[in-house]
Amino acid sequence: MRIAVIGLGKAGLPLAGVIAERGFDVIGVDIDERRCEAINSGENPIPEETGLGDLIRNRGGKELFATTRYEGARKCNVFIIIVPLFIDEDRNPDFRILEGAFRSVGKILKKHDVVVLETTVPPMTTEKLARMWLEEASGLSLESGEFYLAHSPERIMTGFSISRLKKFPKIVGGVNRESGVKAFDVYKEFIPSLHMVSSAKVAEFVKVIEGCYRDVNIALANELFKIANEINIDFLEARKYANHEYCNIHLPSTGVGGHCIPLYPWFLIKEMEKREKYDYSTLLRTSRVLNDQMINYWAEKIVLACMKIKKPLADIEICISGITFRDGVKELYHSRNLALAKALMDKGLNVQVSDELFTRDEIEGMGLKFGNAKEADIVFDSFKLEITTKGGI
Amino acid sequence: MRIAVIGLGKAGLPLAGVIAERGFDVIGVDIDERRCEAINSGENPIPEETGLGDLIRNRGGKELFATTRYEGARKCNVFIIIVPLFIDEDRNPDFRILEGAFRSVGKILKKHDVVVLETTVPPMTTEKLARMWLEEASGLSLESGEFYLAHSPERIMTGFSISRLKKFPKIVGGVNRESGVKAFDVYKEFIPSLHMVSSAKVAEFVKVIEGCYRDVNIALANELFKIANEINIDFLEARKYANHEYCNIHLPSTGVGGHCIPLYPWFLIKEMEKREKYDYSTLLRTSRVLNDQMINYWAEKIVLACMKIKKPLADIEICISGITFRDGVKELYHSRNLALAKALMDKGLNVQVSDELFTRDEIEGMGLKFGNAKEADIVFDSFKLEITTKGGI
Repeated sequence: MRIAVIGLGKAGLPLAGVIAERGFDVIGVDIDERRCEAINSGENPIPEETGLGDLIRNRGGKELFATTRYEGARKCNVFIIIVPLFIDEDRNPDFRILEGAFRSVGKILKKHDVVVLETTVPPMTTEKLARMWLEEASGLSLESGEFYLAHSPERIMTGFSISRLKKFPKIVGGVNRESGVKAFDVYKEFIPSLHMVSSAKVAEFVKVIEGCYRDVNIALANELFKIANEINIDFLEARKYANHEYCNIHLPSTGVGGHCIPLYPWFLIKEMEKREKYDYSTLLRTSRVLNDQMINYWAEKIVLACMKIKKPLADIEICISGITFRDGVKELYHSRNLALAKALMDKGLNVQVSDELFTRDEIEGMGLKFGNAKEADIVFDSFKLEITTKGGI
Repeated sequence: MRIAVIGLGKAGLPLAGVIAERGFDVIGVDIDERRCEAINSGENPIPEETGLGDLIRNRGGKELFATTRYEGARKCNVFIIIVPLFIDEDRNPDFRILEGAFRSVGKILKKHDVVVLETTVPPMTTEKLARMWLEEASGLSLESGEFYLAHSPERIMTGFSISRLKKFPKIVGGVNRESGVKAFDVYKEFIPSLHMVSSAKVAEFVKVIEGCYRDVNIALANELFKIANEINIDFLEARKYANHEYCNIHLPSTGVGGHCIPLYPWFLIKEMEKREKYDYSTLLRTSRVLNDQMINYWAEKIVLACMKIKKPLADIEICISGITFRDGVKELYHSRNLALAKALMDKGLNVQVSDELFTRDEIEGMGLKFGNAKEADIVFDSFKLEITTKGGI
């Protein structure tokens, strides 16, 4: 069995590494030539991923060979697709990257090959779009059993992906029964805790609703946090005693960023809108808006904190400390912390940013002012949610 | 130490029983004369409450003496108030029962007595209203240390209340420091897992947000259930695989009934509205509406199921099986199952109800038609969420 992993990003590379570690030959395909070269030289391009360094050092360029050319994966009989899916300005999924990957795989697809999609997608994407792209590009027919197609959503979390792959339950579902069985048998070789669900669609839905659970519960934490502050209650004290076996109130934040959680609710909201079931996603939409609007809540808190500084408002140096979407992960996609900094800049305030994961050049390259938390008049720590003013008033 | 428990309902009676079991003399005060007589004769008025029967049989009329007269509690030095709080038609809390209880306790309050409110209330009720009622009725001053006042929210669940009191963490918070310490020392005598929080307000908030967590998460389950049905996915299969250490998607339902969860979000919503913070409770309000509207979703499902019956729509016998708010608990307050039956009747449909906890007389006394699930054309099992048609089509 030779396995191709299409997409060597934060989700694909740990998976490719784990498969290679189990003794399989893995061809990794990625558009980023420098990344491929690094991997083949044994260098880990995702240093924040625990355990990945060892895997890449030992297997990179050997059992795990990275290439930018799909041709290099022609001899593979299993294709795992794990490329990004974004949403466009109207919050609809933008399938272009996914379509490109599937059509490229389709061109080298042979009879009886197995294709598994790992990217989190709207339900029905695998059975409809992925199938169509593969059949069109390959000339093979799924119905005649000429190839197999399944979905197995990645459940990684950057920093803990290797242990997740080794310990966390993973699911797989086929677009037809044979596809499910084939994909299950393949995955069983390298995923210890594997469960088969009744269809690819169910597997897709499972992953999407996990994200919805997180988004809604973070929105709830944010709403309760606002209420607690309004009535002068220490939210974290209350949360500590509210949480028990049957209660799991999440942590408040500046909102939800990254490639995952903020996108998934839209998959369902947009699908329901297409069906004119506008009242089937009111909670998901409310939560999404609430989380995205948290930056306005924090912007107001920061502006009001300026009253403690004896300077004209426009002169006060405001430093946003921490601009990534999550502490310790160098990723800005839909980062609300970065959005908060920009929102304050848009108001004309004197905003700097600081983040230990970014150099001065990188920060200035984004059109932001490089700041120093020790010198600014006001610092907002976007992960601790603390506003401190100079002199510690 | 002699302890009075004001209110011997589903929450108060188990608490009174547990305190009596620990060897304290308990005077229980309740407006219901028949209930008091039953308790004093050793009869348990809440048979569905596991373990309560033994407690009442052994302690009723002895260590636990029930009376309708507050005068009977005059020698007590601890007063625990655990009477119902409802909301009015505008969803504002209706404090009349609570006020009556506090003013009655106030009239027999002596210097250095301890008063603890267990009823779940909007934050600040204890420090503002309860304090005012007690001071006005007693002439004593809290500030001068003449009495102590705290909140310790009940965390019972009918059926499991005794074990909850014995095992579950319980919190207590005073309206001032001394009150917190005094109430903690009293409760420590009969509550093994007790924690002190910084104020009565925090204790109130803790309990209310637990309810909000439940309400929002049930709303989420209901929304995802509707979406799953729309796209032909078995929601329960998806839920099974979505839930793990970090995900806890709840069960779908006909909504949320009973005295607790459907009320608590309104405590916060109404408080925020009073403060003109209309956007501070959008998620709580959306969830409340979503849960309450689930009966319309089910009504439509039931009407559409009538297409399977070869009879004029108006002649089809529709049976709603299970009208209580929760399976196995004889309680109809805000029951969505009962509301569903009524909503279908309002449409002019031929609706019967059946419920093993209610006799024919009781059902007919509510203006409902007594039905038999075995004979009706269509049966909706409101706890299993199953619609079955005669002949099992």
